[in-house]
Amino acid sequence: MRITLIAFGKIKAKYYKAATQEYENRLQHYTNLKIVELKDTVLPESEIAQAMREESERLLSAIPSGAFFVALDSRGQQMPSIELAKLINEKQLYGPSDVVFAIGGAFGFDEIVLKRANLVLSLSEMTLPHELARTFLLEQIYRSFTILKGEKYHK
Amino acid sequence: MRITLIAFGKIKAKYYKAATQEYENRLQHYTNLKIVELKDTVLPESEIAQAMREESERLLSAIPSGAFFVALDSRGQQMPSIELAKLINEKQLYGPSDVVFAIGGAFGFDEIVLKRANLVLSLSEMTLPHELARTFLLEQIYRSFTILKGEKYHK
Repeated sequence: MRITLIAFGKIKAKYYKAATQEYENRLQHYTNLKIVELKDTVLPESEIAQAMREESERLLSAIPSGAFFVALDSRGQQMPSIELAKLINEKQLYGPSDVVFAIGGAFGFDEIVLKRANLVLSLSEMTLPHELARTFLLEQIYRSFTILKGEKYHK
Repeated sequence: MRITLIAFGKIKAKYYKAATQEYENRLQHYTNLKIVELKDTVLPESEIAQAMREESERLLSAIPSGAFFVALDSRGQQMPSIELAKLINEKQLYGPSDVVFAIGGAFGFDEIVLKRANLVLSLSEMTLPHELARTFLLEQIYRSFTILKGEKYHK
């Protein structure tokens, strides 16, 4: 199975860069992980709808066809860590072999992304900065694999 | 208003240390923030209930009397960032002047903590490592103040 994380914009803060790097390194022991950073659009307020649409289209074209696609969005459903682990396990066993997670840019996703998504996942009711969201998501994917291997990490 | 964050155990990972330090520094511009680190108990599995009880008692005795006490626990309620900001605003305006947040140790809290809590708050349905939970919570408290000041940080 290959897991791809698509995100808009680079991580700037050194500590979030180090945190995500750490989870990326740990994940290499469990899966084939690829991080794709798409350029985020900088635009005046009046052009947000257009920018969101344009980012969403670029995102969709970065998703391999047939991939199981998880869009991270506050409008989505939450799930306990154990459920995410079950989902990853299911994809490992039965495919598709491509699982793609995507975290939105500053404007969030256009409806076209939510329509393509096989799962719209929310991490919290609270609004997170995208760097923290990426750290959080990577930690949860890592946690999923430790759950599946029956390792001690998860309580 | 004074905000106290009580947590069990030190933050070990360098990046989470740097991340929490960053939010602590930013928060100094808005409020009187105090971090209290209580020693976490290391015990065999069979003594968890006792350890949890003992940690919870130490926690309760660290809370100033009359404080508004928020216990972070997965059994609690979630709220959007804007609601946490409203709650902090209310305490700033009408008191009590002491607001205490607490993040549990590896075993979580005993019932006695949940009973004392004025609010039991959950950040996510997912299980977070305590270092990430602390980063998350500090970011949200910081975000609350930027919301209350009408600053650009929160979207």
